[in-house]
Amino acid sequence: MAHDAPLLMSFAEGDRSMAGLLGGKGANLAEMTRMGLPVPAGFTITTEACRDYLSHGRIPTALPDLVTGALTRLERESGRRLGDAADPLLVSVRSGARFSMPGMMETVLDVGLTDASLPGLVARGGERFAWDCYRRLVLMYGRTVLGIDPASFEKAAEAVTGPAGRDESLLDVADLKALVTEFRQVLRERTGDDLPQDPREQLDRSIEAVFASWNSPRANVYRAHEGIAADLGTAVNVMEMVYGNTGPRSGSGVCFTRDPATGEARPYGDYLRNAQGEDVVNGSRATVSLADLSDLEPTAYAELLGHLDTLEHHYRDLCDVEFTVENGRLWVLQTRVGKRSPAAAFVLAHEMAEEGLISRDEALLRVNGLQLESLMHPQFAQTSESRLLAEGLPASPGAAVGEAVFEPADAVRLAAAGTAVVLVRTETSAEDVDGILASAAVVTARGGLASHAAVVARGFGRTCVTGVMSLTVDSAARTARTSDGATIQEGDLLSVDGTSGKVFAGALAVRPSEVAGALESDDPAEDTEQPVVRAVRSLLGHADARRRLAVLANADVPADALRARRLGAQGIGLCRTEHTLLGERRVLVERFVLDDDRVSALAEMERLATEDFTGLLRAMDSLPVVIRLLDPPLHEFLPGVEALATEVARVEALDGEADSSLTRRLRVVRSWQQVNPMLGLRGVRLLAVFPELVDVHVRALVNAADALVREGLHPRPEIMVPLVADAAELRAARTRVEQCIARTRGTRASSLHIPVGVMIELPRAALTAAALAEHADFFSFGTNDLTQTTWGVSRDDGQTGFLTAYLTSGVLAHDPFVRLDETGVGELVEVAVGRGRSARPDLGLGVCGEHAGDPSSISFFDRVGLDYVSCSAPRVPIARLEAGRAAVSATDVVGSDTR
Amino acid sequence: MAHDAPLLMSFAEGDRSMAGLLGGKGANLAEMTRMGLPVPAGFTITTEACRDYLSHGRIPTALPDLVTGALTRLERESGRRLGDAADPLLVSVRSGARFSMPGMMETVLDVGLTDASLPGLVARGGERFAWDCYRRLVLMYGRTVLGIDPASFEKAAEAVTGPAGRDESLLDVADLKALVTEFRQVLRERTGDDLPQDPREQLDRSIEAVFASWNSPRANVYRAHEGIAADLGTAVNVMEMVYGNTGPRSGSGVCFTRDPATGEARPYGDYLRNAQGEDVVNGSRATVSLADLSDLEPTAYAELLGHLDTLEHHYRDLCDVEFTVENGRLWVLQTRVGKRSPAAAFVLAHEMAEEGLISRDEALLRVNGLQLESLMHPQFAQTSESRLLAEGLPASPGAAVGEAVFEPADAVRLAAAGTAVVLVRTETSAEDVDGILASAAVVTARGGLASHAAVVARGFGRTCVTGVMSLTVDSAARTARTSDGATIQEGDLLSVDGTSGKVFAGALAVRPSEVAGALESDDPAEDTEQPVVRAVRSLLGHADARRRLAVLANADVPADALRARRLGAQGIGLCRTEHTLLGERRVLVERFVLDDDRVSALAEMERLATEDFTGLLRAMDSLPVVIRLLDPPLHEFLPGVEALATEVARVEALDGEADSSLTRRLRVVRSWQQVNPMLGLRGVRLLAVFPELVDVHVRALVNAADALVREGLHPRPEIMVPLVADAAELRAARTRVEQCIARTRGTRASSLHIPVGVMIELPRAALTAAALAEHADFFSFGTNDLTQTTWGVSRDDGQTGFLTAYLTSGVLAHDPFVRLDETGVGELVEVAVGRGRSARPDLGLGVCGEHAGDPSSISFFDRVGLDYVSCSAPRVPIARLEAGRAAVSATDVVGSDTR
Repeated sequence: MAHDAPLLMSFAEGDRSMAGLLGGKGANLAEMTRMGLPVPAGFTITTEACRDYLSHGRIPTALPDLVTGALTRLERESGRRLGDAADPLLVSVRSGARFSMPGMMETVLDVGLTDASLPGLVARGGERFAWDCYRRLVLMYGRTVLGIDPASFEKAAEAVTGPAGRDESLLDVADLKALVTEFRQVLRERTGDDLPQDPREQLDRSIEAVFASWNSPRANVYRAHEGIAADLGTAVNVMEMVYGNTGPRSGSGVCFTRDPATGEARPYGDYLRNAQGEDVVNGSRATVSLADLSDLEPTAYAELLGHLDTLEHHYRDLCDVEFTVENGRLWVLQTRVGKRSPAAAFVLAHEMAEEGLISRDEALLRVNGLQLESLMHPQFAQTSESRLLAEGLPASPGAAVGEAVFEPADAVRLAAAGTAVVLVRTETSAEDVDGILASAAVVTARGGLASHAAVVARGFGRTCVTGVMSLTVDSAARTARTSDGATIQEGDLLSVDGTSGKVFAGALAVRPSEVAGALESDDPAEDTEQPVVRAVRSLLGHADARRRLAVLANADVPADALRARRLGAQGIGLCRTEHTLLGERRVLVERFVLDDDRVSALAEMERLATEDFTGLLRAMDSLPVVIRLLDPPLHEFLPGVEALATEVARVEALDGEADSSLTRRLRVVRSWQQVNPMLGLRGVRLLAVFPELVDVHVRALVNAADALVREGLHPRPEIMVPLVADAAELRAARTRVEQCIARTRGTRASSLHIPVGVMIELPRAALTAAALAEHADFFSFGTNDLTQTTWGVSRDDGQTGFLTAYLTSGVLAHDPFVRLDETGVGELVEVAVGRGRSARPDLGLGVCGEHAGDPSSISFFDRVGLDYVSCSAPRVPIARLEAGRAAVSATDVVGSDTR
Repeated sequence: MAHDAPLLMSFAEGDRSMAGLLGGKGANLAEMTRMGLPVPAGFTITTEACRDYLSHGRIPTALPDLVTGALTRLERESGRRLGDAADPLLVSVRSGARFSMPGMMETVLDVGLTDASLPGLVARGGERFAWDCYRRLVLMYGRTVLGIDPASFEKAAEAVTGPAGRDESLLDVADLKALVTEFRQVLRERTGDDLPQDPREQLDRSIEAVFASWNSPRANVYRAHEGIAADLGTAVNVMEMVYGNTGPRSGSGVCFTRDPATGEARPYGDYLRNAQGEDVVNGSRATVSLADLSDLEPTAYAELLGHLDTLEHHYRDLCDVEFTVENGRLWVLQTRVGKRSPAAAFVLAHEMAEEGLISRDEALLRVNGLQLESLMHPQFAQTSESRLLAEGLPASPGAAVGEAVFEPADAVRLAAAGTAVVLVRTETSAEDVDGILASAAVVTARGGLASHAAVVARGFGRTCVTGVMSLTVDSAARTARTSDGATIQEGDLLSVDGTSGKVFAGALAVRPSEVAGALESDDPAEDTEQPVVRAVRSLLGHADARRRLAVLANADVPADALRARRLGAQGIGLCRTEHTLLGERRVLVERFVLDDDRVSALAEMERLATEDFTGLLRAMDSLPVVIRLLDPPLHEFLPGVEALATEVARVEALDGEADSSLTRRLRVVRSWQQVNPMLGLRGVRLLAVFPELVDVHVRALVNAADALVREGLHPRPEIMVPLVADAAELRAARTRVEQCIARTRGTRASSLHIPVGVMIELPRAALTAAALAEHADFFSFGTNDLTQTTWGVSRDDGQTGFLTAYLTSGVLAHDPFVRLDETGVGELVEVAVGRGRSARPDLGLGVCGEHAGDPSSISFFDRVGLDYVSCSAPRVPIARLEAGRAAVSATDVVGSDTR
């Protein structure tokens, strides 16, 4: 943006393309003004003015004169003058940044009203109306401009309305006058100043307050989390007031061009008679549905439907609209591309493409993997508003039912006894992690989407709702209370909807995801399918047609492989051979390491591995199946040292002498401990110490594949070497693997070629990719390990400690284990791709770390030129969708704001 | 080298510049031939021929004709013909690669001698001489060409000489004839073939044997360790035989132009009458000194001295020379720049520069840090050849005395009781690591400089001698026997010289290093100094004048700082603040973490830190002192979980109930455990959890510095933030540090500026160096941690396990924790330097990891443009020397072959 960008523009001057300068709200107001919609007159003070303010700490010197000019024009157009005793011009002052930022919405209405001009407003709409406006102004000015906490005003109001509060529509003129007096008293007590009686001073200070709100702590944390640049600044929209609160022929409403919850193609909204806009959204009075407006104000209603149709065709998307009816006349106050539920996003995109309103590529860009992910979680079969206890932020999706507990230790204890629990806290900290893990869901009264509870719950896949402001938790008394008086006692059943942020009393029935069920089904019954399932299928189909990235699955057992194939996986990109050694099978490692019963342990491992591999190759017949050689440190399969040492000490104390067999076990297990196992004897390094453990899996794979070939199938086994740091390690491993393949085949003739690849999961592997490519048929990026070593953060230690502290304090915007760190880890991936392909142009390239299933990381993998991503089975549809979106984005289709 | 390089050149055609093609030996023979020295005629088969052989697996087709031509010329020049019955031409066949390779020296003498030509040789030197030559030929041909093990010949010889062997000079003609018969019988038994009676076949097979020796396992390991390319190949030198064994007027000798042990400027050597060259070096007969040759053969002696002088002036370096006197006539058989002891290297370089033979820059390139390091180790006051038990390879320098033990467990047990022990083993493996750690020295019968024992001992700084071939160890009997019959029993005192590779019986007096003592002395008494001390001082002085890199020291306490300053340190590049918390002080962390007695624990920490910092800043007055903020994971200071858990179990078993205080300690300590502490809560991350621990050290530093300023001193404190992965961490840390500095100063006026830098020790820090540079006054590379994360290898787990396996098997040539891995870690260092300096041109750059004191890594740090290296105090002189050498090398002075 040029440095001499304008500081102020009237609505008539701008358009929707100027959101960077005018903010989203200002740009849309300008656009609607251009379209001829009934928008009150006004002007936008630009983000450029805000940036100037932020860098110099004061209002730009040129701004006051520009505001004066704009006000003069406004006075001319409206025929009213600021501060006029007979018919004063009042304005609204609202923030409006480039990107919607819930953390910093600042609004002051009725600016310009003073003791002197009050009579003029009385003349316009009556005494009750005028004093209601005055009450609103003093309250909003006090809160927003002077920064006085809302509680002070609530307390002051009690003197008039009593402690329980009262429906504002029931307040009479005397009440309203008394409230204005009380509120102005609060202003004087808290700041020493009254409401300015110069209307222009009210305006100027309101504008500055909006500028300053850009740097509020909440806004900063929100921006860090959303990756919004800190120096964009906000615009300020100044608009002539129109009034929905002048009487029964007035009112305010909010509506959508289609249903934002289901995507159904009919206008949807709420209307409230004799009210200003904020009354509609804050829920303090019962609204009526949009359809009822046709009875109340048929002309305005017909006009509104026309505008909605115009807007949807103009914006080619779902729009939401704020409107006001003043004495029967319709005003449109705001529009934007509307937020929608995940289900609606799919239905809308699919149906708009069917209608020809948008292209199928655009439709694909209108949905995303996070939405699909939430659709694939279980949901409540039916939610009951009557059982709604409280509402907060949707911090971690899912639907969970459990008994309320208030102490993490109780959660652990009850969970251990088999009880499903919901942990209810004011907020959580590092000591509560065990409790979070033990709970089906977590509910906190404080904290946002980046709070400790939110971060940890998402990390562990627990349902979570944070920021339930209406909740007061008393942990000591093991009880909580909502602001409308309901209580939660320990043991009460709660149902928590992490997707909507709602908390219900009692146990709601949990229904598995329809979408997940339909996608996994062997027998899709298209005719009976829900609109959302049809939409998901259609958009996934288009993603498949467009995507360049293949999508493989990480799977260790045949059942997972079959499920992954049904969900669209094109092979297995990671089979962990250690699966052969997990669970009850870990005794095999014990026998191998502790009891020196190596030969029989190895034979048993080989038998189990052959079984597993046969099933995997069969399930993925004709598709690649990549087997990773043994990776984890062996001590993971052995008994714990602490437990063994404790047992040795106990026996010795009781018997007076040591148990020699136990003591020997302890000694051997202790010798297998590693100080930093993640950086120790594991991966390809095991080959230097226990090559026979590798041979077992290679032999099993060759025998499994050869047997299937004899059955007439087409297995495509591949082998992958983990944790390589130097080409010499890979060369040695490959030699061993190939010798083992040759020996296993013996004289059997099989033309089956088994490619051998390498995992790129250490910085040095990425840097020496050219040398590695000489010994590798493919690279598979292990971004979990690569993140651990690039950052020097172990997943086990970081996530529950300092990493959480970094995320909640905003030091880091994202958990690098969840979203690929493009700056650091990403550079290494790019370096490896470039060097590997230069050395070997036909090198295969994929990724099999957790990031392979992360929506926001997949476009990166597409951009750097990988051939495939391999993720867990449930994430396969998400990866397919995102891979399609990445391909479409790369071809530069018209973008969308819905993400 | 051009692909059509010649396959064969006569000595008269080449010169010393052609070592790549002719090998070192061949190039020097050609050079001496050009200089007119009395070199027997001959020719060199080039490395090109060898490379052709190695890539095709057979002798190049053009070679036989070239050899025929060269032999024809040789016959013409010598007047003798190959296989001639009357006066046969015999030749020597010797390998000679570009770089000297002890692992693959292959020699066959007297090639061409057959039953038919033996009478001709009898005519030349008598019957005893001729049969002695025949004996040598059969033996060398059998060993080198046919690959028969030496023991077979030793066993066969016993039939003639008896089991104890006999001085070969005492063998009579009958004995020699019998030996030839016995040895030829060995050939037939082991290979089915006798010695070829076609002289040309003897020659051709000898040449091929030398070619093939290039790929022997020993040669491969040696090359990997020395970083010599695997595809260079060796040359083969074929030279007319001259004989030192024709009678009393003949003999062979080896000499040096100066004393290679002390550097003293007089010729030095050994001469053996009536002997061939190998007899001189294998020590089977007593030699006389070079001076005695002047009595025996005055003419040859005078001629030799003249040649030595010519050679030293020609080569401008110490030369060693092999010569033979045949019936009074002098022949020079070989010369090369001579190997020398570390002390001699310094004396020679210094004195040759004083003499004007070489420049001071060249003198500096003639010595290196490894030599200086060995001079700074303790040595035996006086070694006694009469007490010499055995000799092997100098695997890890130093001088150590202890009782012989044969089992690692015994070493551990005795060491725990305070006894110094020397572990004697056939070889060592991973299970012996505890024993190596417990020992003062390690001696092994097998294994080379890259064997397990050698690698581990060097890693731990233990004296070590490997490859003592004369030693037979019987661990079960706890005894060892040398080949000359001496025995070592458990408990016998041994003195081990790791610098020379010698093992002595009894306890020799250990003398601290003269060089170290002199350099550390406050009062250098130049007049009484040894030549080596004068030489070291002089060359260090020149290094200081030339070097670009500053040399700082890593020091935590004032005593170390003072010592470092005496050794030339220009400041402290790393003070570990955790020193305040080590040893008995760890109870402070316990109090902080366990007992929640935080305030008093912090106060005590601050008091101790202030004391330490005051001493450090005083010792380094006017020089920079860089304090690193707390780095290690706190659990390192807490009691071990296993020990605590054992105690809890023991008490519970005995008392029937748990000790609640102990149980609480266990619970807290357990909560502090980390799965991978190296990747866990440590470094800058501690700031997110315990900022007060950081404040303690910042306050202590500010107060210490301000106090010294008031004393009129000039402290230069700096602060360094460890383990940063992201610029936001550094920004937060820097803010906290600067706020703490400001608060500590309060109203006190001090203009002291305290720069704040960052350690670059994670791959991500290197990659994001540009962003870090915005918040850092300097970078200090922590190459230990950077190596750990770049390789994904923890020093604790790698060094005693798979890393050792990699080094001993040759998968890796060097331990990346000892020598900086330029390929991987080095690239990250270069990236960080480039990006950091681009973002901030005045950024300070240094390194404080272990590599900062490693000779071979310092030239890398100089090359990439660092400002300083910071190493432990004893390594400061080594770093100064290497920094000087790096600067001189960078300016491209004439090189040297002495490294």
